Amino acid sequence: MASVLRCSSKLRFAARIPVARALSTTAALRTSEKSFFSNEPSGPSVSTAIPGPKNQAAAAELNQVFDVRSLNMLTDYSQSVGNYIADLDGNILLDVYAQIASIPVGYNNPHLQQVAASPEMTRALINRPALGNFPSADWAQILKTGVLKAAPKGLDQVFTAMAGSDANETAYKAAFMYYRQQQRGGHDVEFTEEELQTTMANQSPGSPQLSILSFRSAFHGRLFGSLSTTRSKAIHKLDIPAFDWPQATFPKLKYPLEDHVQENAQEEQRCLQEVERLIKEYHNPVAAVVVEPIQSEGGDNHASPAFFQGLRDITKRNNVLFIVDEVQTGVGATGKFWAHDHWNLTTPPDMVTFSKKAQTAGYYYGNPALRPNKPYRQFNTWMGDPARALIFRGIIEEIERLDLVENTRITGDYLYAGLERLAQKYPEHFQNLRGKGQGTFIAWDTPKRDQFVAKAKSVGVNIGGSGVSAVRLRPMLIFQQHHADILLERIEQLLKLI
Amino acid sequence: MASVLRCSSKLRFAARIPVARALSTTAALRTSEKSFFSNEPSGPSVSTAIPGPKNQAAAAELNQVFDVRSLNMLTDYSQSVGNYIADLDGNILLDVYAQIASIPVGYNNPHLQQVAASPEMTRALINRPALGNFPSADWAQILKTGVLKAAPKGLDQVFTAMAGSDANETAYKAAFMYYRQQQRGGHDVEFTEEELQTTMANQSPGSPQLSILSFRSAFHGRLFGSLSTTRSKAIHKLDIPAFDWPQATFPKLKYPLEDHVQENAQEEQRCLQEVERLIKEYHNPVAAVVVEPIQSEGGDNHASPAFFQGLRDITKRNNVLFIVDEVQTGVGATGKFWAHDHWNLTTPPDMVTFSKKAQTAGYYYGNPALRPNKPYRQFNTWMGDPARALIFRGIIEEIERLDLVENTRITGDYLYAGLERLAQKYPEHFQNLRGKGQGTFIAWDTPKRDQFVAKAKSVGVNIGGSGVSAVRLRPMLIFQQHHADILLERIEQLLKLI
Repeated sequence: MASVLRCSSKLRFAARIPVARALSTTAALRTSEKSFFSNEPSGPSVSTAIPGPKNQAAAAELNQVFDVRSLNMLTDYSQSVGNYIADLDGNILLDVYAQIASIPVGYNNPHLQQVAASPEMTRALINRPALGNFPSADWAQILKTGVLKAAPKGLDQVFTAMAGSDANETAYKAAFMYYRQQQRGGHDVEFTEEELQTTMANQSPGSPQLSILSFRSAFHGRLFGSLSTTRSKAIHKLDIPAFDWPQATFPKLKYPLEDHVQENAQEEQRCLQEVERLIKEYHNPVAAVVVEPIQSEGGDNHASPAFFQGLRDITKRNNVLFIVDEVQTGVGATGKFWAHDHWNLTTPPDMVTFSKKAQTAGYYYGNPALRPNKPYRQFNTWMGDPARALIFRGIIEEIERLDLVENTRITGDYLYAGLERLAQKYPEHFQNLRGKGQGTFIAWDTPKRDQFVAKAKSVGVNIGGSGVSAVRLRPMLIFQQHHADILLERIEQLLKLI
Repeated sequence: MASVLRCSSKLRFAARIPVARALSTTAALRTSEKSFFSNEPSGPSVSTAIPGPKNQAAAAELNQVFDVRSLNMLTDYSQSVGNYIADLDGNILLDVYAQIASIPVGYNNPHLQQVAASPEMTRALINRPALGNFPSADWAQILKTGVLKAAPKGLDQVFTAMAGSDANETAYKAAFMYYRQQQRGGHDVEFTEEELQTTMANQSPGSPQLSILSFRSAFHGRLFGSLSTTRSKAIHKLDIPAFDWPQATFPKLKYPLEDHVQENAQEEQRCLQEVERLIKEYHNPVAAVVVEPIQSEGGDNHASPAFFQGLRDITKRNNVLFIVDEVQTGVGATGKFWAHDHWNLTTPPDMVTFSKKAQTAGYYYGNPALRPNKPYRQFNTWMGDPARALIFRGIIEEIERLDLVENTRITGDYLYAGLERLAQKYPEHFQNLRGKGQGTFIAWDTPKRDQFVAKAKSVGVNIGGSGVSAVRLRPMLIFQQHHADILLERIEQLLKLI
């Protein structure tokens, strides 16, 4: 406990120096930069082949009871700190994958340690409420000082959930209920006898054949409804029944963007036209369009603010809801708290879903009509987890205290510039470098992607891919310029190994 | 902290007296019985109308940001203890609803308090792993001493999940993948090009039109796949697209059972024949049958061990998987750890799903072929929550220490006998009393159910309903005979008010 407090007070000291904002050039920043984590190692250290012998033995043990074929490494969280993840053999890696983009403020963050040790947390852990029935007396307060403090502009309500998949699915359910309510003629129109009967047999009109429109190469989760909107890879979908829902083409932009302005704008127009055509013509009527600000699992595919404004316009025009899936892009990684803040939309999205770096999940909304017309239509036993909502509140406090969204914006620009230099030097390894001005949410294509990712651990970096050929960077919000320097240096080493 | 330890040591003392097993008659038990919670109140206390003024004000505040129409009461968890739940106005109620059957070992359980305050818990809370990629080094150990220590006989593997809905849906996914693997001719047969392509468009054969067979009035969750197997109430399903999956009739038994032996056996046979016919004839082939040991949300509908053995036989015979949904029945409430332990099946179910009282979720399985043939087919970012897995381990320890399954069996028999006496005295209020020999998992029908449940708080009891006309009892595993006495007395008071 003493060491936690010690560490924490150092952090507070560091925070009093407004590092990220006071200095104007990245070079100046770099030299004066203080680490947010005073006890972080100065760099990675690798002492065994990875996976090492202890890791292999432990994986074999785990395999007896738990499928380990997707195992990356058995992790020693007691030895992981800040941006560095430790494996069971004592290797310490700079982590720019961060639990599939879900760790925001560093391993063993001292402030979160305090949140975890609080009496409030203990109560939430051991008296888990059915939030729709028996919320704790301070649930409104926890929401207002946490989940809702971070709410996107214009959206002041929340339905809490467990993870990205059910956050999206409950948003879809809200969209379907809203759509049918509009068709019926409003909030107060009762269900017909036919609806009440047919729904018990999963048949229309009670269980209507409506749809959610998503995009090719999108990823929105893996449960049955969310998987029906996921179009990333066959391996995610094979053998699982799916709804007959439409997919539109997501723009395939050419890079560098500044050399393909006209062409990219045309591509986006073409995709928007396809969306509108599908909305008008698809045989299962479209209740909502769901889109990621940056398609993440699907390969780090970007589109312009104009494209998203176009989507907003089309959905408005056709009376279809607009759901923005910020599960991977949300909570600061793009240099704004929500990636859709980059778009300056004329009206906010109807719903925004979140999970991952929030460490809890749900969807935000603003229109009160999105609350279904009767209770118990949008409901489940737990409706999320207050313990995880407390962690999100701690994360928001940490983001504010250390100005971490701004840190990510600045570090991202610095890192991007470094990658541009590498791309010029090693053009065979860097295609379609993307994510400029999007914080640290950066990716590029490379023909030897799988080798690149597999061998990265040997040079001390934990890194992941997305789509077929992309390396994706997903560092935490505490990733600073000295970490970027290390990453750039290690990437250059790695290029010589593959 | 001191008060926690004090309380805990008293609990340990109480545990050294083997109360539940040493005494042979319930009467003797009752007089010598010591409370598991030394700091529990001696009974409910109600000092305001419910909801009281503070509750109403707080609900109005919460309503600004969170739908409160399903609100039961705003709860003061700091003042709740053992079997007693406190509201914001200082009212203290005997809780036999227990967060929709999900609190196992009492509010503010001292042992769970210790688990919550452990360094392991802090690490799990603040370094949340992507369990499929970066499990903690001790994940196998946590599973083996926790989740898997409680595994049903014959099932030694687990896929961890977040809650009941996704536990069921991932089990369904495993069933579909297994079914297609059998069709294809085994583990090593590759997908066809056609499958790879059609699945990206949600079309067969890649996304095949297979089905899960469930029962009328079943409840298996509210996401799109689980909701397609839920047939409890229209309000759960209206306006949500659903899969064209078959439903069979669940037996409607007549009570008292001993007076309708022949008739009930025929009813069960009729239902079993319907199941087999649907499996053979339904246009979307059935990959699995899912069933609750006792239909819970659907109205506490029971069937005999012979019925479930029949289901097991039919599924075996037709090469269809048998999934038992123990989300509500599992973890001790029926007087056995798993309700399906009552059946003495000739072969174990293929999968058993759990959540609620486990405070974490997932599905157990035994057959290694239920691991899909490639990695990343059954996967998501978090795959559960180690923090909640640690709580389940603490719950299992507490259940063992205090012999709580046996306590529930004995208390259940005692409570059932008391309800039988009430039913004889007030036959107009008790129909179809059921759950004999099923621990405290007891229910009855009553024509004034909604009034009964609504007015119960005024006599100091928090109680819930299920189905259309049932009162369902779902006390915790620490519910003892002196609590049963209070409950019986308050029910009798309540009957005079409605």
